Amino acid sequence: MTSPTGPAVPQHNSLSAADSEPAKLGIMEGCPPPADKIVRVADGSARTFPKMRWAYSNMRQLAPTKAVSRGPGPAFELPRAEQDLTGVKATTMDGKPTTFGAMIAETYADGICVLHRGRVVFERYYGALSPEKQHICMSVTKSFIGTLAEMLADEGAIDPASPVTRYVPELKASAFGDATVRQVMDMTTGIKYTEVYTDPNSDIVAYRLAGAAMRDSNYDGPQSFYDYLPTLPKQGEHDVQFTYKTVNTEVLGWILRRASGASLSDLLSERVWSKLGAEQDGHFLVDSVGTEGAGGGLNVTLRDLARFGECMRQGGAFNGRQIVAERAVASVAGGGDPARFAPAGYATLPGWSYRSQWWVSHNEHGAYMARGVHGQSIYVDPKAEMVIARFASFPIAGNVANDPITLPCFMAVARALMA
Amino acid sequence: MTSPTGPAVPQHNSLSAADSEPAKLGIMEGCPPPADKIVRVADGSARTFPKMRWAYSNMRQLAPTKAVSRGPGPAFELPRAEQDLTGVKATTMDGKPTTFGAMIAETYADGICVLHRGRVVFERYYGALSPEKQHICMSVTKSFIGTLAEMLADEGAIDPASPVTRYVPELKASAFGDATVRQVMDMTTGIKYTEVYTDPNSDIVAYRLAGAAMRDSNYDGPQSFYDYLPTLPKQGEHDVQFTYKTVNTEVLGWILRRASGASLSDLLSERVWSKLGAEQDGHFLVDSVGTEGAGGGLNVTLRDLARFGECMRQGGAFNGRQIVAERAVASVAGGGDPARFAPAGYATLPGWSYRSQWWVSHNEHGAYMARGVHGQSIYVDPKAEMVIARFASFPIAGNVANDPITLPCFMAVARALMA
Repeated sequence: MTSPTGPAVPQHNSLSAADSEPAKLGIMEGCPPPADKIVRVADGSARTFPKMRWAYSNMRQLAPTKAVSRGPGPAFELPRAEQDLTGVKATTMDGKPTTFGAMIAETYADGICVLHRGRVVFERYYGALSPEKQHICMSVTKSFIGTLAEMLADEGAIDPASPVTRYVPELKASAFGDATVRQVMDMTTGIKYTEVYTDPNSDIVAYRLAGAAMRDSNYDGPQSFYDYLPTLPKQGEHDVQFTYKTVNTEVLGWILRRASGASLSDLLSERVWSKLGAEQDGHFLVDSVGTEGAGGGLNVTLRDLARFGECMRQGGAFNGRQIVAERAVASVAGGGDPARFAPAGYATLPGWSYRSQWWVSHNEHGAYMARGVHGQSIYVDPKAEMVIARFASFPIAGNVANDPITLPCFMAVARALMA
Repeated sequence: MTSPTGPAVPQHNSLSAADSEPAKLGIMEGCPPPADKIVRVADGSARTFPKMRWAYSNMRQLAPTKAVSRGPGPAFELPRAEQDLTGVKATTMDGKPTTFGAMIAETYADGICVLHRGRVVFERYYGALSPEKQHICMSVTKSFIGTLAEMLADEGAIDPASPVTRYVPELKASAFGDATVRQVMDMTTGIKYTEVYTDPNSDIVAYRLAGAAMRDSNYDGPQSFYDYLPTLPKQGEHDVQFTYKTVNTEVLGWILRRASGASLSDLLSERVWSKLGAEQDGHFLVDSVGTEGAGGGLNVTLRDLARFGECMRQGGAFNGRQIVAERAVASVAGGGDPARFAPAGYATLPGWSYRSQWWVSHNEHGAYMARGVHGQSIYVDPKAEMVIARFASFPIAGNVANDPITLPCFMAVARALMA
């Protein structure tokens, strides 16, 4: 047994995964549902455990959305070779023995799908999720946006070396006024903006309000992301270090819209979703002027999330065609500069980097991830020829809270599949 | 030439269909869209011509929705035998010569699809609609709900002769306290409730606010349909005459949920949408507690609307299976009592009746319709073996305003196809 040396899963007093199943709690059940079982955006319950377990699989019932069309073609049926991986053993970062199955419960997975060599080897649904339903991706959304940016860059439709203002002159007086597209893609901008999920005074609150579709009528702040982003002042220098600030992704979304002339929904549909053999349309949450939340607003099904991960693992080729340019995938998988990532202080991600809205491990498997709060993940392990897609409702937002059990279990499954 | 004898299309000063194309007006175009081109529910523009032309094809971007799943199966491809029907001649109710093509423009069709013997003979899209997009059905939604009620009645899962309170005891003290399910289905209840779209003091306003997903924070009225419906007092007697009051359909939706244990979305999916070979999911607008708008909240694609109409025309059999019970279709197609309908005073619908949320012509073709404000229609003509599905954005809400040109043109196309 390894002695405890690394970060541990923080203690919390929340109901267990089994006890927080929305159906068991009666959340949104009945006509009408009892008052204390109703989930709303306005009262914050849609973002609060345990009601968020219902909300994250039902976002379109809570807010306006825009479809990401899968197009008219047939779905690409993923081949299956199922095996029970729940017993795969692992050791948490602080040295405790665990299993893949225990991890699923302890991280409040709403759904998890493991692909090996393109085949579904393991797939389970919990909470309010089912195979045909979309779950919110949270910041996994960013990796879709970053991939689109790499694709447009590969085609020359955007130039990462160009100033942001080449595409969005409205940002001239803001922190982004002297930043490049690449700095926005890699989040190495210096912006006076904080993203602390537990702090009600953090700028993330103002960001969310600006991008909300529904607001209290007393609200008199920025009416959309387009109003909000130009207000952000510079702090520090660009190109020095990685700092995770979602507003970068909203700026990147704005650049993509301007460069492509399309909405993000249509761009993602045309370039990826309609080619992937997706089973279902995806959808973006939209703000009060129809703008997609690039930083966290995408909702897709678990299997479609896995399809996208598998497309990346295969160098962008999937469903019989090159969907993401090979150079775009290579740019992501190659990662950024770990030295610029280290100062951000992610205890669970030593030696990692951030590149084009993806998190890159630089481990011996070359693994990289799309990561969203509360446990949303795509884990691509090229060496193990494995992809794991997971939706979750972990009670604590930041993934540093579930990484200590999640990452060792993902790696253990990779090793088990390679054996 | 017939001399003018009947109702005419009212004069209005709105932009023409061609000049009110949302793309031409720049509605919701650009990032951000200019302030005067933004469509919102809150400021009423989503319900006001011409912005409603964009809104009616994009409702899910404006409000929360719940999916009506088409299920995993393949779409049932409608066979095609297209012909140009635009030149088909007709005479308006007030005696003016017109054509099917002129009618399409003059009624601001967003899409129209004509089936003859199950084949698509004519299909066009305008405004903000396209084949893969859902358009709001308005009160055509009611006919779906009425059909579900007939289906459950055929199975004995609801009893039309039973009091409403057998299923919804909460309505005991309201106008519905001594009404039967059949009276609700046929809208022969006596309720103190007005539905005048042009009167800001009409009860339809309170109804809409109760069922709104997004409201001003100063609003302190009923929080959902479930709060609102029990407040409606009786006026007059039940079972005397037809009076069009949407609240009947919300009560019927409540009955269906209680009797089936399912949401209306899931019920429609399970019983109809997943069997129809629909191309796309539909979706319902939902109120602030997730309740579907039974009276007008369904959104589907034009071709899927046509598929449902064709299923009805074929006695409920479609896509190789009996979807709607034959007796349920017969109950609708047989119509209600024209004598009870006549006092409602619909000048454009002489001799018609209302049955299970459908409008029945009792004409020589046995035609019946699903009808929604601003021109939404399913027109089933059994004798001509024809179905017409139309979505529209006619500037005036009530269909009495477009019937004088719509109905003669529908009948003229039926005759042309029979020739």
